[in-house]
Amino acid sequence: MARFNTKPVSGTRDFLPLDVQRRNYVIRIVEGVYQRYGFEPLETPAMERLETLLGKYGEEGDKLIFRVMKRGEKLQRILANQPTENNLADAGLRYDLTVPLARVVAEHRNRLPRFFKRYQIQPVWRADRPAKGRYREFYQCDADIVGSRSPLVEAEVLNAAGEIFHELGFDQPEDFVMRLNHRAILRGLMEVTGVPDGLEGEALVAIDKMDKIGLEGVRRELAQRGIPAEAGEKLLGIMAEAPQDVEACLAWLQEQLAPSEVGRQAVEELIQVVHYAALGPVAPHLKVDPYLARGLSYYTGAIFEVDFPGLSGSGGGGGRYDELVGMFSNQTIPACGFSLGLERVLLVMAEREMFPDQLQGQPQVLVTQFDQERIPHSMGLAHRLREAGFRVDLYPALDRYGRQFKYADERGIRYALLLGPQEQEKGVVAVKDLVSGEQVEVPMEELEEWLAVRV
Amino acid sequence: MARFNTKPVSGTRDFLPLDVQRRNYVIRIVEGVYQRYGFEPLETPAMERLETLLGKYGEEGDKLIFRVMKRGEKLQRILANQPTENNLADAGLRYDLTVPLARVVAEHRNRLPRFFKRYQIQPVWRADRPAKGRYREFYQCDADIVGSRSPLVEAEVLNAAGEIFHELGFDQPEDFVMRLNHRAILRGLMEVTGVPDGLEGEALVAIDKMDKIGLEGVRRELAQRGIPAEAGEKLLGIMAEAPQDVEACLAWLQEQLAPSEVGRQAVEELIQVVHYAALGPVAPHLKVDPYLARGLSYYTGAIFEVDFPGLSGSGGGGGRYDELVGMFSNQTIPACGFSLGLERVLLVMAEREMFPDQLQGQPQVLVTQFDQERIPHSMGLAHRLREAGFRVDLYPALDRYGRQFKYADERGIRYALLLGPQEQEKGVVAVKDLVSGEQVEVPMEELEEWLAVRV
Repeated sequence: MARFNTKPVSGTRDFLPLDVQRRNYVIRIVEGVYQRYGFEPLETPAMERLETLLGKYGEEGDKLIFRVMKRGEKLQRILANQPTENNLADAGLRYDLTVPLARVVAEHRNRLPRFFKRYQIQPVWRADRPAKGRYREFYQCDADIVGSRSPLVEAEVLNAAGEIFHELGFDQPEDFVMRLNHRAILRGLMEVTGVPDGLEGEALVAIDKMDKIGLEGVRRELAQRGIPAEAGEKLLGIMAEAPQDVEACLAWLQEQLAPSEVGRQAVEELIQVVHYAALGPVAPHLKVDPYLARGLSYYTGAIFEVDFPGLSGSGGGGGRYDELVGMFSNQTIPACGFSLGLERVLLVMAEREMFPDQLQGQPQVLVTQFDQERIPHSMGLAHRLREAGFRVDLYPALDRYGRQFKYADERGIRYALLLGPQEQEKGVVAVKDLVSGEQVEVPMEELEEWLAVRV
Repeated sequence: MARFNTKPVSGTRDFLPLDVQRRNYVIRIVEGVYQRYGFEPLETPAMERLETLLGKYGEEGDKLIFRVMKRGEKLQRILANQPTENNLADAGLRYDLTVPLARVVAEHRNRLPRFFKRYQIQPVWRADRPAKGRYREFYQCDADIVGSRSPLVEAEVLNAAGEIFHELGFDQPEDFVMRLNHRAILRGLMEVTGVPDGLEGEALVAIDKMDKIGLEGVRRELAQRGIPAEAGEKLLGIMAEAPQDVEACLAWLQEQLAPSEVGRQAVEELIQVVHYAALGPVAPHLKVDPYLARGLSYYTGAIFEVDFPGLSGSGGGGGRYDELVGMFSNQTIPACGFSLGLERVLLVMAEREMFPDQLQGQPQVLVTQFDQERIPHSMGLAHRLREAGFRVDLYPALDRYGRQFKYADERGIRYALLLGPQEQEKGVVAVKDLVSGEQVEVPMEELEEWLAVRV
């Protein structure tokens, strides 16, 4: 007998119904909030031209792109004549949602409004080594505002993110922190602490690891990356002194960065962002954190990240990146966005049991079968309840009630409806509650009402 | 200056906001109906092992699979040593949703209920030559019931399909036809008309083209495919005589197929299906059509297809296929399903202007900006309306009103809200209707109410 490997491809997952329902529960909330903030949906193909993808994510990123092979004669010609990794493939799988956004902005510029507020919720693929919590296929949930340099935009994006977490159930001030920083504050801090020109990137990489390796770790890493000890100490010292309170921290930064032109401007910008954001849902969660670096080198202004106190890993993040969206348009197009860390959020919500008991999409009642002759009546009952908006399964065979109840139980359906000759004669439906085991008779004409308050 | 090709990969599409909103409008209805019929969602990875895909779709299908290349050292070893189309790739992109379903059933058997009712709405990829209406990336919307042989299942699937079309707006009896046939009726017809054993497949292929090439075409095609003229004539003759009425047609088929055991049984099955389906939404659309063959060779029982009178191309179809889902489980697992032809349905709905004016996800109002000082007030107003559930865009810059109105117009937003010093003093918001050009003042505290009846 042939044996098949029926596991999903390494690093990818099958999502069974409960998984999808939980994912959709979160995604629907995210979509709803993005829409109420004026974002509209965009979808792009899974495959992009290889040349669109290569060189956009650094050397390491290029290696992580799944390449799709050419086909037919084209492929055969290449196979016969010095095939290479690159000439065998003509497309790659989408690696993120930002490069496709940049391509779309270049391609459809004249069909898009002056400010393009789009959200995009689609899977991306990366040939990373699979590990706990790291997948080769995972969803990104991005919202970006393209076309404006106003700090208003940061405030809007931050508040949309804050509102998402509120609606997911992270609604207490201590449930999450929105850490806020600015690339030019980091740059300014290096300027005033004497980190040499050209080593700023190295220092950033070290600082970005604060969460993972702690103060001592960062100190060692700074030294290893060639940052002079004095500058390193100053940098760490200044950062350790930063006040907790948002306003106080910004005032303090203004002092520290007095000698740095870019630094002072950046603080001014953050003051505006915080001022504008103050009226929205994110306000109680904001914290200025001069440690925050965020790895991606493409950020040019404000940066931010959602953290759950006491848990590692971020719930999402984003920032301003004014030099990226224009890469295919040969111009500078300012942009600022947020990307929700869906996989992380799902994990935290599962751990904390934050999902509702009844998820959209789960069937609510099972209509059972009595005998062959009464199948049309069962079907009629099922249709009636479906018309009334209930999610109704109809048992698709003739079996004794015990098996039918067991099936309802396997599917997590609480109420089984019985419509045998006795019930028909009395004009009732017998309803078996599979949780309590109780069975009651409900008059046929009151059934919808009876169910409405229970499911 | 570098020139980039920013078009989507050949045969694939960028979906701009209105496209996505229309697609989502249809998909939400499909999902809602599937859920009310007791189906639950499944999602599988875009990539499948190459060996899972190959050999499942015929020789032609194998050629249409997008292959994903191996990576790193593994790839380099192969490149150095006789690379071939198959050894260079270890995965392929999903070609349909049925093979993944079969794999999932084999892999997760013990986690699934006895009858597995799943729907799956995901893209699939086929390296077909792109043409009008034929894409290399397109969505399939499948619902299947796995595990039961009862004709109840056909009736449920048919009614779910019928309900989808009703809710999409095809709600008159003449808006669509659900053509119904049975594989064994076709087989029986060949038996009684004398199509030789072994040529049944050839005859089926010819008959399947009736829609495209007409009666004369099929006659020629039958001859070309080696069907004896006498058998071909009998086959066509019998089919041309089939009564229009469902019950009459079934009775007539019973007579015609009297000499064929499999044929008679098939008619019995269809009689049951029609009987069970009679109470549901599909009933007024059912039509028995002994011409219907449906190309896919994997069907084993009832088959059906949705057609729009006067239009070519089908709105979806399906049937019973008892030998496919078990292919990775080494057992026979009965199944029956429906697949909506999403791209075709979208096209017909666009042509007939069946989409609502205001789609879920489109912003409803624009809050404008007056000056720097009042930005927080505009933001406050936007937040208040968002809390009330409105989809609100906030103009992300300081510009004269004319430009702000133009932007609202570009985004299809009808109402622009103005909150300047005059309005603030009077405790009102000025609302500009960009369709009529009128501007009215609405008391601040009545704004939600005023908007609720208009957007």
